[in-house]
Amino acid sequence: MLIAVDAMGGDHAPEEICKGAIKACSEYEDLELALVGIPEAILPHVDNSGLVGRKLHIIPAEEVIGMDEAPALSIRKRKNSSLHVAMQMVKSKEACGCVSAGNTGAIVAGGVLIVGRIKGIDRPGLGVPLPALNRVTMLIDVGATVRCKPINLYQFALMGDVYMRTIQGVAEPSVALLSNGEEEIKGDELIQEARKLIKNAPVNFVGNVEGHDIPIGNADVVVCEGFTGNVLLKFIEGTGSAIYSLFKEELEKRFWSKVGMTFMIPMLKDLWVRFNYERTGGTPLLGVNGAVIKAHGRSKSEAVKSAIGVARNFVIKKGVEKIVEELSEGGI
Amino acid sequence: MLIAVDAMGGDHAPEEICKGAIKACSEYEDLELALVGIPEAILPHVDNSGLVGRKLHIIPAEEVIGMDEAPALSIRKRKNSSLHVAMQMVKSKEACGCVSAGNTGAIVAGGVLIVGRIKGIDRPGLGVPLPALNRVTMLIDVGATVRCKPINLYQFALMGDVYMRTIQGVAEPSVALLSNGEEEIKGDELIQEARKLIKNAPVNFVGNVEGHDIPIGNADVVVCEGFTGNVLLKFIEGTGSAIYSLFKEELEKRFWSKVGMTFMIPMLKDLWVRFNYERTGGTPLLGVNGAVIKAHGRSKSEAVKSAIGVARNFVIKKGVEKIVEELSEGGI
Repeated sequence: MLIAVDAMGGDHAPEEICKGAIKACSEYEDLELALVGIPEAILPHVDNSGLVGRKLHIIPAEEVIGMDEAPALSIRKRKNSSLHVAMQMVKSKEACGCVSAGNTGAIVAGGVLIVGRIKGIDRPGLGVPLPALNRVTMLIDVGATVRCKPINLYQFALMGDVYMRTIQGVAEPSVALLSNGEEEIKGDELIQEARKLIKNAPVNFVGNVEGHDIPIGNADVVVCEGFTGNVLLKFIEGTGSAIYSLFKEELEKRFWSKVGMTFMIPMLKDLWVRFNYERTGGTPLLGVNGAVIKAHGRSKSEAVKSAIGVARNFVIKKGVEKIVEELSEGGI
Repeated sequence: MLIAVDAMGGDHAPEEICKGAIKACSEYEDLELALVGIPEAILPHVDNSGLVGRKLHIIPAEEVIGMDEAPALSIRKRKNSSLHVAMQMVKSKEACGCVSAGNTGAIVAGGVLIVGRIKGIDRPGLGVPLPALNRVTMLIDVGATVRCKPINLYQFALMGDVYMRTIQGVAEPSVALLSNGEEEIKGDELIQEARKLIKNAPVNFVGNVEGHDIPIGNADVVVCEGFTGNVLLKFIEGTGSAIYSLFKEELEKRFWSKVGMTFMIPMLKDLWVRFNYERTGGTPLLGVNGAVIKAHGRSKSEAVKSAIGVARNFVIKKGVEKIVEELSEGGI
């Protein structure tokens, strides 16, 4: 199986992307990776791996889409960018899927414009599996479709259900709609219309959930507009940083707390591993005709390896095909 | 100064509301409170205080609006409910303001339908002062106006600015618009139109902020739609509960971590005091013609006392009058 990796996308590209690719190749026997980008930038990081030409293939692409570039425009104009070339490989079936830690908007635009949407899907959704207290909850969408119509939320519900069932192995995932209250009357017209649609979908719909249900983990799939999902996801990231800074600052001032902290390090390390969603990251862009996986912009090699693993899993478990089936069952 | 208190609203009403009222009376010499509700339910909790008839006045209201009742309907129909009567006292100027820990939707509906909006204000906004890492940030709106027009967000910006300046004493508060990206091109039409309006407002507008800026505290006022604000606020509450459960569960399993924890208790207690926004709560409903303060539904006596203090402060600092002035300056 060949997966294309955008070697130039992300804050730590190309070095950490290349390291992640090497790790993924060592972990998965069946895997070959196309490292797409500027060859002279990539080579130094993979030359000594003994994998080049065997499991790692360098595919030249001279341009790089910056993290702040206008998404649709850059993906349209920069035909020789690493992201464009990687996506083109998915479109042409040269690669089974692609992974990028680059500009999120450009990944979404590329997914739609190059790879193409699954027939019947109106808009794609980025679904992040978030480790919550009781389970892993998929929050969908976190920024692919900023504002939604009811049909988009309905389709996110279907796709989130397929993903959790097929890829994460959750039997009968509970699917919920994020609102400002649990009661049916809560939410605006969008939420109420979406609720009616999802109620009749072939999923285990549990109704509305509120913000507090997410960290506790009261549903397997939580559906929302990209705007809200994006704000929430970034809020989670900011909360992590804020708590870290706060503890560091406070501990500097307090001797006994610092002593106490040393006893707690093993526990905190375990919790960090369990809850740091970036580390185990790999966010599928659901609704496009291929395994398009976004890694976090800050991804280091472990996160890149993990995202590649998510792409491989998505291909093996036939994620795209399952969504197509589900859609025809859902009848919309 | 007389403030009306809805003695029947909230999870711990009337007992904790009454206790909070007694505390507030002891703290503020200039304060008298009207405890509105079922006299037989209120009396046992205040009888021994020696304040009844002097600083505490019991105003009978036989009905109670439940936490799950339809807001607008209940406030319209239940004219003899404690909330309705308390608000009517504000409307008639018998009371300078009112405090309720009851049904949020009913408080908003009552604010609009009974107390009335400030002339020129389209929709009210609930502004929560959230303790963030670097400062207290006012998040407005957290649920009064579920979906907004640009003009609503503009008015939230003005009112949040007035509140932080006048009531919280922040000089030149920075005002930001919550979006899915910092760049001007981010957000949908609503955000972009609101951005244009706020840019020309007489406030220190710092542009868009993203979710991660909130816990870090990168602005004094963060403006958003009620839907998003409500989801975020509840997410924060859920995260608090989730972290607490998690630590409790993990500590049970780990002896040395438990030992470490005992050294950290003073620090954690201090942080709890600093960051528990519910404790110091009191959320102003901005945009209505009076000091209408919502206390958290779970409020115990300390939080009730605090909310009463917020109402008193709002009256003393002439919150309503300042908003009226600012509006005419803003010219919209």
